[in-house]
Formats: sequence, C-alpha cells, structure tokens
Amino acid sequence: MADGRWPGIMPIDISARFSFSLHDPCDVLLQFEAAAIPEQTILSCDCQMSEAIHLARIPAQDNIGQRIWLRSEGLYEVDYRARVQVNRMLADLSELERLEPHDLPGEAVQYLFDSRYCPADRFQPFVEAEFGHLTGGPRMVAMRDWVAQNFSYVPGSSDATTTAMDSFVERRGICRDYAHVMITLARASAVPARFVSCYAPGVTPQDFHAVAEVFLADPSIPGGGAWHILDATAMADPAQTVKIGVGRDAADVSFMTTFGAAQFEDKTVAVTAPD
Amino acid sequence: MADGRWPGIMPIDISARFSFSLHDPCDVLLQFEAAAIPEQTILSCDCQMSEAIHLARIPAQDNIGQRIWLRSEGLYEVDYRARVQVNRMLADLSELERLEPHDLPGEAVQYLFDSRYCPADRFQPFVEAEFGHLTGGPRMVAMRDWVAQNFSYVPGSSDATTTAMDSFVERRGICRDYAHVMITLARASAVPARFVSCYAPGVTPQDFHAVAEVFLADPSIPGGGAWHILDATAMADPAQTVKIGVGRDAADVSFMTTFGAAQFEDKTVAVTAPD
Amino acid sequence: MADGRWPGIMPIDISARFSFSLHDPCDVLLQFEAAAIPEQTILSCDCQMSEAIHLARIPAQDNIGQRIWLRSEGLYEVDYRARVQVNRMLADLSELERLEPHDLPGEAVQYLFDSRYCPADRFQPFVEAEFGHLTGGPRMVAMRDWVAQNFSYVPGSSDATTTAMDSFVERRGICRDYAHVMITLARASAVPARFVSCYAPGVTPQDFHAVAEVFLADPSIPGGGAWHILDATAMADPAQTVKIGVGRDAADVSFMTTFGAAQFEDKTVAVTAPD
Amino acid sequence: MADGRWPGIMPIDISARFSFSLHDPCDVLLQFEAAAIPEQTILSCDCQMSEAIHLARIPAQDNIGQRIWLRSEGLYEVDYRARVQVNRMLADLSELERLEPHDLPGEAVQYLFDSRYCPADRFQPFVEAEFGHLTGGPRMVAMRDWVAQNFSYVPGSSDATTTAMDSFVERRGICRDYAHVMITLARASAVPARFVSCYAPGVTPQDFHAVAEVFLADPSIPGGGAWHILDATAMADPAQTVKIGVGRDAADVSFMTTFGAAQFEDKTVAVTAPD
Repeated sequence: MADGRWPGIMPIDISARFSFSLHDPCDVLLQFEAAAIPEQTILSCDCQMSEAIHLARIPAQDNIGQRIWLRSEGLYEVDYRARVQVNRMLADLSELERLEPHDLPGEAVQYLFDSRYCPADRFQPFVEAEFGHLTGGPRMVAMRDWVAQNFSYVPGSSDATTTAMDSFVERRGICRDYAHVMITLARASAVPARFVSCYAPGVTPQDFHAVAEVFLADPSIPGGGAWHILDATAMADPAQTVKIGVGRDAADVSFMTTFGAAQFEDKTVAVTAPD
Repeated sequence: MADGRWPGIMPIDISARFSFSLHDPCDVLLQFEAAAIPEQTILSCDCQMSEAIHLARIPAQDNIGQRIWLRSEGLYEVDYRARVQVNRMLADLSELERLEPHDLPGEAVQYLFDSRYCPADRFQPFVEAEFGHLTGGPRMVAMRDWVAQNFSYVPGSSDATTTAMDSFVERRGICRDYAHVMITLARASAVPARFVSCYAPGVTPQDFHAVAEVFLADPSIPGGGAWHILDATAMADPAQTVKIGVGRDAADVSFMTTFGAAQFEDKTVAVTAPD
Repeated sequence: MADGRWPGIMPIDISARFSFSLHDPCDVLLQFEAAAIPEQTILSCDCQMSEAIHLARIPAQDNIGQRIWLRSEGLYEVDYRARVQVNRMLADLSELERLEPHDLPGEAVQYLFDSRYCPADRFQPFVEAEFGHLTGGPRMVAMRDWVAQNFSYVPGSSDATTTAMDSFVERRGICRDYAHVMITLARASAVPARFVSCYAPGVTPQDFHAVAEVFLADPSIPGGGAWHILDATAMADPAQTVKIGVGRDAADVSFMTTFGAAQFEDKTVAVTAPD
Repeated sequence: MADGRWPGIMPIDISARFSFSLHDPCDVLLQFEAAAIPEQTILSCDCQMSEAIHLARIPAQDNIGQRIWLRSEGLYEVDYRARVQVNRMLADLSELERLEPHDLPGEAVQYLFDSRYCPADRFQPFVEAEFGHLTGGPRMVAMRDWVAQNFSYVPGSSDATTTAMDSFVERRGICRDYAHVMITLARASAVPARFVSCYAPGVTPQDFHAVAEVFLADPSIPGGGAWHILDATAMADPAQTVKIGVGRDAADVSFMTTFGAAQFEDKTVAVTAPD
C-alpha cells in the first residue's frame, strides 16, 4: 500500500454495465459515476442510458458525485465508461494524529454517530481494550489490520440486513461488511468515519467496491483535518481508488435503489490500470 | 391539533437545567438551544454554562440550530432560559400530496434511507398492506393515528439500543420511539422523514421532546416541498413546538453526547405557553 | 380443514431423497423419518443410506421420532420411502379452552419460554391488543387466521437467522417463519407451543414442511391437555400431516445438521395422498 | 478453583427472601430451591410462603429441581432457608476430552442447539480462529478464561433482551451474560452447554447466581459423559455451588415468571460457607 507520496500518472479505465426491468413505471435512484472532485480527474466519460420518462441529476452526499433520479418502465440499460486520473495525496497514516472531538468541524460531526449498519456506540469497551494503547492514525491502521487478519472474505455471506455487529460476530463478509466494521471501530474511537463506494482495479471478483474513510488531523493545516481511505479487504490501492460517492454507510450509497417492483437483470464491472 | 392556519402570537417560555460530572478532562457535544430559524423567533435567551477548557459552536445538521463542543472537567452545569415565538405555517396535511421520489431535492434524499433506529426498508410490505389505499399527507396522518392508537407511552420501556423494529413489536415506548416508528413508516412509503428534537408545552412528564417531520409537496410552489411535524404521542401541538435540531434519528440529535467517562447529575425542563 | 372427526383410512406416501458431500470425515445429525407415535402408524418404510463410519439412532425431543448420528466422508445419499396412516384425533379448536398456566404439566412448561426464533415475551402487548377478547382455542384459531391473512409466502425471503420478530415486521416468510410467528403469538398468551417438522401432501413446492402445535385443555380428561396442529400457511391438512419431530423452534428439528464442512447436493421430497 | 478432588464437608447456608404484589389473581412460576440431586444433599430446609389460591410442584428441566406453580393475589412473600452439602466430584477439566458429537446421548443433544440468548451457530468462525488449536476440556477452560479476561462485570448493563451476541460486542454484563457467552462459545464447538441457576458464596453483590455447564467425556465410563460447571465470572467455586435448576439459557430458569401484572417488591439473598 502506497504511503506519503503523490501517485504518478495513473489513469484508471472503468467500464460498468447493468440493466434492470421495471414492470410498471417506477422511480429509481442511481449513483454509479466517478465523482468529479479535486482528488480525481475525469479524463473522459461516456454514459449511455436507455430513454427514460424522467431523468434528473442531483448533488450527492457531501457534494461528492451525483445521484440520478430516473422514472422509467420496462427494460433499462446503463453502459458507463470512463477514464479517471487519481490525484489523491496519500499520507502515511501512521504519522497522523487524531483531531480531538471538540476540534471537529461541523460537517464531520455526523460521521461520529451510529448509523443503520454501524452501531458504534456498543463497541467502545472492545475498542478501548483492543486498541486503547494507540491513538490517531496508528490506531486506524491497527484496526484495519485487525479486520484484515480476523475476517474472511466470503461472497454471499451477508445481505441487506447484515450490520457491523453481525459481521463482527461472524467474522466474515464482503467489502461492504469490511467497511462497516472499520467505520464502526473508528467511530467507537470518536474518529469520524464514512462509507465510500468506488471503483478499483484488483477487486476480485470485479464489481463495485466499498471502502472506509476516516477523518484525521491534517499536519499542514493547524486545526484542519482530511479524509483518508482504509480498505480492510486490502484489494484496493488508495492510489487507484476512484470514488463514486460517500455516506454514513451502505444505506446511503447503493448504486441502485428502486421505488417499486424491479427485477435486476445483469451487471458487469471492469476496472483496469495500465501497468 | 391546529391545521391550515397561522398560529397567533404564541411566545413559549423554556427553561432547561442540567448538570453532569466529568472525572477527567473530556469532550462533550451539546445541543439543547432553540434553533434560530425562520419558523421560530428567539425573543429572548439566557444561557449560563460553567466555565470550560474549550467551547465552540458549530452549525448543526441541515443548518438547523447549533451544536456546542465542550471540553471540561469536574461538575458542569447548564442553565438555559428562552422565550420563543413560533411562526410556523401549519398546513392541513390531509390536503397535501406527496412528491414523487424523482422530484425530491438533493437535501431531502438522505431522509429516505435507513438509519440507526429506523430500518424502513423492512417495513414496506406492512406499510403497503396497512396504508396502501392512501397517499401523501392522508397516508402520513393515518400512520400517525395508527401509532397513536396502537402504542402505549411507557417511560423506561426503551433504551439507547431500542429500534423502531423493537418498538413496533413491543407496541410501546417514549417520544423518541414514537418518532422512530413514524419516521420508519414514512420512509417505507418513500416519503422523506426526519427526527426533530424540540421543546413543547404539554409534554408529560416535562422533558426534552422528540417528534417526526415528513417532507410533502408544497402546493404553493410547483415542484417544491416542505417539512411538516407529526407527533404520534399527541402531546405536542405543532403550533407550539420549538425546534432544537434535526437528524436522521435520535442518534444525531442527543442533547448531550460525552466522549469519556461522565456521570449525569440532574435535569429539569419546563416549557410553558401563556393561555 | 377437518374438525371434530376421526380421519378415515388415509395412507400417505412419502418419498424423500437427499445427498451431501463431506470433504473430511465429519459428524452429521439427521432427522427425516416419520415418527413412530400413536397418532400415526408406519405401514411400511424403506430407508436406504450410504455406508457410514458410524451410525446411531437416539430418541428425539419429547420422544417423538429419532435422530440419527452419522459419521461419514465423501458423498452421502439418503433415499427414504414410507407409507404412513394418520390416526390423529382432530378436535374443533374453536371449542377448546386453554389450561390455566398453573395447571400445565411439567413437560409442557418448556414450551412457554422464549426460544431462538421465538422471542414471545416481547409480543405480549400486541397479543393483548389484537386477541385480548378471545381465549383458548378461539384465540389460537384467530392467531392462525391473522398470520394467514397478513403474511405472504415468499420462498427465499428468510434465512437461518430470521426470527419471528423479523418475520412479524416483514410480513413474509416460508413455512418455518409462519410456524415461528404462530408459536410466538401463542406463547405470548401463555399457551405452550412447539415446532413440528413434518411431511404433508399439498405443500407447494414439495419439501419438508413445518407447522405449529399448541397445548390446550382436553375436555375428555379433567385437568388434562393435548397438542393440536395449526398451519398458518394453510397448505397442510392436520388429518394428513405426518410428524417427523418436534422442538422449541426450527433450531431443534433441522432435517440435517452438519458438524464440519459439508456441501449440500440435492433434495427431492414427494408426499401424496390417494384421492 | 478446586480441581480433581472430592470437596470436604462443606455445608452451605442459604437464605433467600423475596416478595411481590399481584393486583389481580394471577399465575406465577417460581424456581428458587436447592435441587435435591445426588451431587448435593439438602441437610435442612425451611420454606415459608404466603398462602396461595393454588400451589403445585412440578419437576423442572432434566429433572433437576422443581418448579412451583402458584396462583395468588395481593402481597406474596417467600422466605427460604436451607443448609446444603455439596458432594460434587470436581474434575480437572484440562484433562478431559470432548465426546465426538456422534457419541452424544439423546438428552445432551438439545444443548447443542441455538437458544433464545445463545445464537451459537454464528460464532463458529470466531471459535475456530480463537480456540481452534485446543479441544475438549482445555478448550472450555480457555474459553472461560477468555471471557473472564475480556469482559467487565457491570451490574445494570444488560436486560431481559440482551443476547450473547450483544454481550460479546459490548464486552460486559452480569452473571447471566457471562454464562450465555460461555454457553454460546461451547456450543459453537459442538460441546453441549447448559445454563445453571444456583446459589454460591462469594457472589458480589449477593444474589441468585448463574453459571454455565458443559458436557465432556467421563474418563471412568467408556463412551460416557458428565456435566461440569464453568463460571467465567470467577465468583463461584464449583465445590460450593448449589444448583437450583438448569435450562438452555436464562429464559428457562428464571427464579420468578409472572403471567399477569405483578410488581416486584423486595429480594434478599445470603449465601455463606463456614471457613
């Protein structure tokens, strides 16, 4: 994993195709495009979508990326291709300190709280016992490594009701579950943590991916802080991770949410980085 | 309950006193003041707080009210008094339509999603079966009345882990639980719903109160929407409800969150409206 | 549904075939045979099983049927055929009274308590509100009809972690979930209730089936009681239901429990009754 | 803790007094007396109870102790005193092997399954990772020590809905929670485990106590097994533990279960052993 460096020129090629069928006219919320944010440059982008009754783009959470509101009927197909260059500054997390809670800016505070899949409050005794000797970045890295070491990546072992508490007990899950546990442990340490849906090469099997992001002190700005990616699955390199959107947890950044009877038909994701 | 009218001049007098002890220096997040927002005017306000090592105000969620970051040690006392005039326009909910999901503005979308205490997704079949014949405001009113009729207000029957699912099964709770169930049912209908911490006369026993708020179409603005208070406990009149803050659910707007060992000492809330 | 009558000569033909693979030598607990109990006569029976390292039969819960302990390796196949005549006396439940809790015999008491999938204690307010005007058999029938009316039978909608609380909220499930909800509601009324795994014609799709059984007063024996089948799915006729075993809930009477890495290969169940 | 020895003459003196009020005539199930079983001799016993409308004793689970069915009204008082000599053979658990599942007798099998507070199935990956290098008695001892080391005994930190999963995450609880976690870990290893309500000197604060019991091979009987007490709270010496009753978990052996509106008034427990 890369640390303390600017990544070089690293265009990532993304292809995502999926389709679904809507029996009756029905609303759908989509969020699958690489976000246009300073830390990543959309070099090129082509998004083919079936014709819809209604289509509108709205800003997504924390103004990272966009959500697409759709109203349509019958078969709907999305074919998205993009080339993205990641400009993300990668810090050496083991050298970063935490911000004291009372120094956290307003926009980070919501990421301290319990969310649907991350009941962090209940994990305080465990976190204190297991990681109490560490603080800030080193604690976050230790948590990531603890999850990596103690969990098994088992496709199909979780579903839409699986919380970080379930995963913590069962010691297994997929990327969303790894991210939920990492977020939960961080918040139980009073470190803001959010869920990032993303594209990354190296994800096996190739699919939409999810990682955690934690908010730590920025040594270059007194009193300032910055978000840092942590992937407990170790499949994604933060230097090659293309963000789609962020949220409190998976409940906020599903790539597709339907408001009516829908049948999912097909999905193919391919993400590659030139060697 | 008041409908379709501007409330008259109705100053509400609020007094809230509470204290807690911090063994070691420790961070605390407070949110207990009437929010300065257009729908309510702070006529006067006096907030006495013990001296702190650090004190900072930050904007709270949706810019409604402020959170106070505190760092202190030993006994800490808060004595807050305010006189607030509620200017809230009260609509007749039974005449309001819902906004189609695809017409929802970006800032309302987060309130569609499942949150810590409101696993709305699982309630869709129940909501469809019980309220499927209604839409928009009439459905929201029917949900409020259903909760009011089927639940018992039992102080002490819930705790910090109680979700809307627990309350739905146990058919009892306190104001936070009533609000959680109302929010859950609304979201299961694709109507954005949020949690409002507030002061209101008539709350028995006198304490901080909580109600739900739902986002429905605003007939005066094509494509626009507005938030409307629903109190399934029927203890608070929306015309006399003074908002403190809003959030996805109770996890976001606790009046006090401590980041360290604290002992709660005392709390007295009194809210009165002149006859 | 048959009531207040002795069923006529009704031999039920059962065929159950299933197979699984055990990578290493591994213990397996099976319970799939029609129980040899007074209320049903095993007219004929043929059970072909692969050779095992170890095989032993032990009495199952309440001495209803047998469990088979197995130790084996590699592919294991079971081919079971039986013809069973059901002699069960069928009462008109609407005429039966409940036994006061203090009159319950020792062996029925365990079926009052909460079990893995049936947290009955929490349902008392709901049960009191919804069924409080009824007692005994009429209350049980009303509960069965309430579940039948409010739930959807949706294969695949539940898994090994789904409790009656989950099902109650989601209003859907399969036979095990219907039985769990029925058991939970009965126990919340202080009526002993147990889980019955069984074979029955009419189950769609054909598979092992599960129903609830409740313990009510036996009018022919002062102070006595008897168990009565209730199938909220309405797929099985109690006059044609062949019991395999009983337990507190599905945790006790799985047809197959493996103590090691196993892969389930195949299952075919066919149950027929001559017209 | 005593190992591999017959305890000497150790009479334990027990005093338990409690009272409750029943507004209307109501059924109550009690289980609070030292069980008359071979491993402990009731030297003397005096049980004063208020007059009741109905009182009957029935055998309790596994024929260990008795349950008392009561029907009464108004204030009800119990004053129980007993002197009990514990004759329990105490084995050195670290020398005991487990019974292979397929060698378990029928009556022990039910204690392999998930119960209300002990969802053991979900803990298999954790148990395998943490204790996979050990088997039989040494594994059980390691589990007991792991719980003892990682949990905090915090009166008031759990309630009637707290499961072993909750406790495992929160790393705290009272005796019932310690026993539930111990039972859960044992069952996740395919070792039968049950819940024992008991009296023991040394319990702080003095109260009814609960411990776990596991079923391991009995080296003196080929193919035989025996139950052994494990107290992860380390408060009770198995040589001085007087059993009241056993069950799958706390749901089965509450000292008092009411079937109607009751108000608990008072409880005093004192257990002493002569030096």
